[in-house]
Amino acid sequence: MKNTPAFSDAASPAARRLSSRLETVSPFLAMDVLARARTIERSGGSVIHMELGEPSAATPAIIREAAARALSAGRVSYTESCGLQTLRARISNHYRQAYGVEVDPSRVVVTTGSSAGFVLSFLALFEPGARVAVSSPGYPAYRNIFAALGLEAVPMPLNADNGWVMTADDIERLHKDKPLAGVLVMSPANPSGVTMDGASLEAVARACRRLGIWLISDEIYHGLTYGVASETALAFDDEAIIVNSFSKYYCMTGWRVGWLVVPESIVRGVERVAQNLYISAPYLSQVAAEAAFDAVEELEQIKTGYAANRDLLLNALPDLGLDKGPEPTGAFYFYRDVSHLTDDSLSFCRDILERAGVAVTPGLDFDPENGGSYIRLSFAGSFDDCREGISRLRTYIRTRG
Amino acid sequence: MKNTPAFSDAASPAARRLSSRLETVSPFLAMDVLARARTIERSGGSVIHMELGEPSAATPAIIREAAARALSAGRVSYTESCGLQTLRARISNHYRQAYGVEVDPSRVVVTTGSSAGFVLSFLALFEPGARVAVSSPGYPAYRNIFAALGLEAVPMPLNADNGWVMTADDIERLHKDKPLAGVLVMSPANPSGVTMDGASLEAVARACRRLGIWLISDEIYHGLTYGVASETALAFDDEAIIVNSFSKYYCMTGWRVGWLVVPESIVRGVERVAQNLYISAPYLSQVAAEAAFDAVEELEQIKTGYAANRDLLLNALPDLGLDKGPEPTGAFYFYRDVSHLTDDSLSFCRDILERAGVAVTPGLDFDPENGGSYIRLSFAGSFDDCREGISRLRTYIRTRG
Repeated sequence: MKNTPAFSDAASPAARRLSSRLETVSPFLAMDVLARARTIERSGGSVIHMELGEPSAATPAIIREAAARALSAGRVSYTESCGLQTLRARISNHYRQAYGVEVDPSRVVVTTGSSAGFVLSFLALFEPGARVAVSSPGYPAYRNIFAALGLEAVPMPLNADNGWVMTADDIERLHKDKPLAGVLVMSPANPSGVTMDGASLEAVARACRRLGIWLISDEIYHGLTYGVASETALAFDDEAIIVNSFSKYYCMTGWRVGWLVVPESIVRGVERVAQNLYISAPYLSQVAAEAAFDAVEELEQIKTGYAANRDLLLNALPDLGLDKGPEPTGAFYFYRDVSHLTDDSLSFCRDILERAGVAVTPGLDFDPENGGSYIRLSFAGSFDDCREGISRLRTYIRTRG
Repeated sequence: MKNTPAFSDAASPAARRLSSRLETVSPFLAMDVLARARTIERSGGSVIHMELGEPSAATPAIIREAAARALSAGRVSYTESCGLQTLRARISNHYRQAYGVEVDPSRVVVTTGSSAGFVLSFLALFEPGARVAVSSPGYPAYRNIFAALGLEAVPMPLNADNGWVMTADDIERLHKDKPLAGVLVMSPANPSGVTMDGASLEAVARACRRLGIWLISDEIYHGLTYGVASETALAFDDEAIIVNSFSKYYCMTGWRVGWLVVPESIVRGVERVAQNLYISAPYLSQVAAEAAFDAVEELEQIKTGYAANRDLLLNALPDLGLDKGPEPTGAFYFYRDVSHLTDDSLSFCRDILERAGVAVTPGLDFDPENGGSYIRLSFAGSFDDCREGISRLRTYIRTRG
């Protein structure tokens, strides 16, 4: 057994250290909660998962069958870096059918989840040091990807005053302070579940266009709305960069497949980055994703389940004293004010996990400024899990006194 | 149909442009060759693929069956960001069995192919602007990932004089010119197929340790050697960063799954970047990868096929006037000098593809300096394809005169 060779000429290990870039990259606390939850489960404990933005429903059979057929055919190979032509065409068709918007298939870039869509578009669009406005609270990976890539995420505070959505005025104001290179919007939003209506999104798109800055629209929760429509930024600005994924509505998280829609002029640039940083998205996932558009019937049933979960939580949360926070019209989250219970949501969530067996996400993941007094509850799980989670939380909050 | 909305307040599109970072990111020419080859095939043409580093063999059945079982179980979900514990343990075990080296499973990070391994380790280890020595010729994505992430790839010329391998002296000399933050070695190497012996790798490891700079060892072609051993850098420096993948020996390119081995001290940093930039590697691919270690019998047969292809090319290439270049003892490539035919390998390869129906890769992909007079031929395809490819090339070179 060879191990830790000892060298007479060994240098001080101190010369080898982590990049200072990492100082500005926070851990994704939801993933930390998941890791701890899995440890508890491995040692026989019970955990209700309300921490992750992950459908509890299995990927629809029709999608898995498409992958199974590809598996038996044998080869599982690289694809072209922008993705299978047939999938790109299918996604283009989706824009026509769902939104009445024409998107040439050549403008669709298949990505390894929306995660890759962010890295690709940020690298392609922004100079080092560029300032990009992002919602706060917002998806934590935005901030951290920006930090890792040497870009500056400029937080735009969302709260009850602005109805938890970015406004054209906010953008103009931030840009006036110090020029922005782009704006990143998300609707329906994580963690708030708030959906922008067409007029608000159009106003934001117009502002970006007027200022000559990029608009990136994260539409990963499209399809998951309750009584309102999902509007694509493409309807208002043909140059908007759309980031989307099969993870949420299509129940395909672990497949890691998503897509970008980009203006013709930047396709080649994005492709170059994709060739080098990713080679291609996973083959089976691309084949499966083609079938996703045929699974709408099953997916709509799953969505009906989320709607029931949402109603359950809407009714139950006030009873637990968790009545303050935006009312979600999309996605599958409640972002709730817990300032009457704690100003340290991280410790609070750890305590809930250990003592009540419920995994929820600290608001600090989404908002380093004010997230200490918020938690996010996901209702992407089953109805029974949501009910059991609420019941455990009720006991926990009562016992806590 | 809504499309390209016209705004009275539209800004000049010139204000929105690609990042200048992209000026230093070259396209991965092998992927461009692939894209053109696929277009030819879609319109009914015949192409022999000698351009991609991709096994023509299907992923072994035992591996695909593991994925199929997971598919029918239903859920295809995110995993912890460092990967399934069971897979990490399996990889750790592989180090014990294949190399006699102890690696704690906690030091193994499952990645979305080696592509993700590079991005993760580069971001975790290097400050913006850091200089890292890379072989030239070498895997083009190294250079381009460095460029995209604001790092400087310092080319170390390999040629017949230094036996196509980096030496400790070369590293000391480069570092003396201007300090390096790290060295990236690859053995067996792409595109040369040259394998470093234990002594050479140990000397490089000692030099890096003495200089206090990181050693990153790309071991993606391990297992694919012909008459020589695959040596891991971990045997010579327990702090070496190992990048590996299931793509090559295990015939799992399109699955996009690989791994890093990193020192305990940086696991958490790498995990943080992984959480934010990737969430997790594809689930089915991780499950399948666990089974890969049980497929050795079939994989060794596939390797016997490569060895036969290699012999075929070793005998045939001199006849075509392609006798100059390193003799591969690993991987599945011949890197051959074509300076008597061209000094523009890109046009040359395009011409071969269009006129002879053989896809090969221009040396410019691997070496912007001298690659104009080299091409890379992959022998990862079938024996029949190699034979047909050689036959087409013979006709092409004769006809060309």
